[in-house]
Amino acid sequence: MSGLNERQLAELVKSVVSTYTNSDTINHLGGDPLPDTDEVIALAKDLREILFPGYFRSRNLRRENVSAHVGSLLDSVHMRLTEQISRAVGCQNEPSLRLVSDDDAISDSVRSAVAAELFLKSLPDIRRLLASDVQAAFDGDPAASSIDEVIFCYPGVEAITIHRMAHALYRLKVPIIPRVLSEWSHQITGIDLHPGATIGPSFFIDHGTGVVIGETCEIGSGVTIYQSVTLGAWSFPRDEDGNLIRGQKRHPTIEDNVVIYSNATVLGGTTTVGANSSIGAGVSLSRSVPANTIVTVEKPQLRFREAS
Amino acid sequence: MSGLNERQLAELVKSVVSTYTNSDTINHLGGDPLPDTDEVIALAKDLREILFPGYFRSRNLRRENVSAHVGSLLDSVHMRLTEQISRAVGCQNEPSLRLVSDDDAISDSVRSAVAAELFLKSLPDIRRLLASDVQAAFDGDPAASSIDEVIFCYPGVEAITIHRMAHALYRLKVPIIPRVLSEWSHQITGIDLHPGATIGPSFFIDHGTGVVIGETCEIGSGVTIYQSVTLGAWSFPRDEDGNLIRGQKRHPTIEDNVVIYSNATVLGGTTTVGANSSIGAGVSLSRSVPANTIVTVEKPQLRFREAS
Amino acid sequence: MSGLNERQLAELVKSVVSTYTNSDTINHLGGDPLPDTDEVIALAKDLREILFPGYFRSRNLRRENVSAHVGSLLDSVHMRLTEQISRAVGCQNEPSLRLVSDDDAISDSVRSAVAAELFLKSLPDIRRLLASDVQAAFDGDPAASSIDEVIFCYPGVEAITIHRMAHALYRLKVPIIPRVLSEWSHQITGIDLHPGATIGPSFFIDHGTGVVIGETCEIGSGVTIYQSVTLGAWSFPRDEDGNLIRGQKRHPTIEDNVVIYSNATVLGGTTTVGANSSIGAGVSLSRSVPANTIVTVEKPQLRFREAS
Repeated sequence: MSGLNERQLAELVKSVVSTYTNSDTINHLGGDPLPDTDEVIALAKDLREILFPGYFRSRNLRRENVSAHVGSLLDSVHMRLTEQISRAVGCQNEPSLRLVSDDDAISDSVRSAVAAELFLKSLPDIRRLLASDVQAAFDGDPAASSIDEVIFCYPGVEAITIHRMAHALYRLKVPIIPRVLSEWSHQITGIDLHPGATIGPSFFIDHGTGVVIGETCEIGSGVTIYQSVTLGAWSFPRDEDGNLIRGQKRHPTIEDNVVIYSNATVLGGTTTVGANSSIGAGVSLSRSVPANTIVTVEKPQLRFREAS
Repeated sequence: MSGLNERQLAELVKSVVSTYTNSDTINHLGGDPLPDTDEVIALAKDLREILFPGYFRSRNLRRENVSAHVGSLLDSVHMRLTEQISRAVGCQNEPSLRLVSDDDAISDSVRSAVAAELFLKSLPDIRRLLASDVQAAFDGDPAASSIDEVIFCYPGVEAITIHRMAHALYRLKVPIIPRVLSEWSHQITGIDLHPGATIGPSFFIDHGTGVVIGETCEIGSGVTIYQSVTLGAWSFPRDEDGNLIRGQKRHPTIEDNVVIYSNATVLGGTTTVGANSSIGAGVSLSRSVPANTIVTVEKPQLRFREAS
Repeated sequence: MSGLNERQLAELVKSVVSTYTNSDTINHLGGDPLPDTDEVIALAKDLREILFPGYFRSRNLRRENVSAHVGSLLDSVHMRLTEQISRAVGCQNEPSLRLVSDDDAISDSVRSAVAAELFLKSLPDIRRLLASDVQAAFDGDPAASSIDEVIFCYPGVEAITIHRMAHALYRLKVPIIPRVLSEWSHQITGIDLHPGATIGPSFFIDHGTGVVIGETCEIGSGVTIYQSVTLGAWSFPRDEDGNLIRGQKRHPTIEDNVVIYSNATVLGGTTTVGANSSIGAGVSLSRSVPANTIVTVEKPQLRFREAS
């Protein structure tokens, strides 16, 4: 096997490194360290141990030892999450973590530690929401045979678990890390749930592959969504220079107990689906419907002919 | 970096652990150990070594050493699979593994060992089916350049490999583990294939992302399915208390040599697609069609206008 | 826990190994070693370090140490990639690597080393294309808050990164390895992008789950594609023996600055979408449209009724 000789290697290195110019936007040389995506995912897995104790890595948890176990995890997670938040803040141009405090005298490092602590304080609330989500999945799927199966095997439960963590960090205005979490969830579940979306209790996504839920969605309690549903933007307003305007409500509002069947699309920031409504498979909707409405689509005519 | 102080940590621990109440449904404290999802996936990877010898981790297999290699794997898999089945049975309320024996004197542990052995005895049949599936993928895709490429790179082959194992365990009424396998397959292929579905030889799913095949589907020989096809339930019957009735045939029957193109949906437990039929892209079907039928959908009118 | 006894194990081994016959197509016993899919993925991760320096594993890169770092990676990648290409060539029946040289006197091993070097020489061009893709993602999504976020969290960026590497190897007629890369990308992004597709600069796929782009697609500059879009084949011509004809142009041509919205399907090797056109959500198109055309679909009638 013939390797590169010294001259060949030197030329290759030079040709590559010469593209790492100052105007090059896709290198990060010499700056503060960026967040570590692998570490962010490791943190999420540790947090899952706290949210569903006894289900994943730690299998001998009992009432007697669970406090020690959780204490050790919380301490470690706080320290490591603070570090990642601090890195994320450091590489962001826009102001962030403002929710924590507007006092400019507070360093980013202290601010990050406070954000991490505030996040951990929200874990009991997240657990209560997740218990309702797990129950909703069991109640909503005749193929589910036990709560344990739902916790182990339902991608919708995995997606909402990660989302509830990502959303808590998003609300604290932590940059980048919520999106790293949501994209990890997208990878393993096929569900693309932006961390900005607000989602009430007892939320159930069945099957899930291809679901897209946008940043400014507001979803009530007891909502069920099937595979390949999009809750999306209708169009993107631009400013007078032609740049996208960021931060507007672009995605719909879904009220309590709505069911949205597979391949349906609901678009637009002013579109509201009223409570207890159902949106049929394949419906494409971009205007509001009142509560208690059943929306279906006139199915196109099928043609049947015999194979020759 | 400022960590949590002792009081802060103690309060956090208390707030979290206080949610692990007796009525809390999402903890598993003090009970028998649950199945280990990572170990179940590791078992599936070991089984893949047996099903496709020489393709994955072990690359120096020859006629002379393959028996020793397979023997070592089978022995290890039997022991570890028995342990996982035993755990799965232990955390299940409903009766399971009944297919193995109805004799209540037999312990769950022995029953689990027998189920694991019965499963391993089905591997030769699984291999024969998989050889037909690999050939169907090669024959069905003009982009395929070799059988090796099909085995290495086709998500549909990966999904049916895992499914054929999961289905064999499902038929032995092993709880939870078949769903852990199918959800792992769903994660890596985007194909959501319930382990209950019965699938004949020479099965090919192309591309695959978004395919959903429900628990009570019955699929014949030589069937081809494209991306985003749903073989689903029409509606979920509930008992008089409003609870879902579990275990009924809710999903369609697809006879031999049917082709179902992308984004088509076939729904309902009494729907049968007759042999040699083809269901066109985007068709939504909830009634039976006879053999040799070509079903297409009247495409909605397109509008063309010049951009202003 | 009762393990298998000696007789049981021997019988199991015999029943399995007896299926590894000479006519069995899914074993690889005694031949030359096959490519190692895990190693191919590891190589792609190393190459990502070179393409996006400072973003992933190596976080302390500075102008002073980056040449040493890149040199060490390039040397290692060249050696290991040569080995994998050599294995891939060895297990292929059809002629391959012909682009490198038609001289039969050159061994596959030398040919593989040359192919690996030619591939590495294309990295500067790949970097320039990727910088345009990253910018296109930022410019095209109002939810994007920074270039860093786009590099870390956008599945479309991950898919095009892997594609640009896979396509360079495909053009060198390296067998199997390009498809291993594209299927890895498919697993982690839900985007099924065949390595044969030709794609211009500033390419952006948003959300991405369910996108399928076929082998012979030709895509211009500045094209944007949303989730679940298929750029596919219309039908597969067969030769007089009924076998698929491989290698023809079966997939569409998409010219510069076209936008294709979610769930649209464009089919056929003679179909061209002219520059600056937009294809609306859900459109199914199998004929060419001129430049500057807006194509939408007449939405089927919705029905609204009150829930009883």
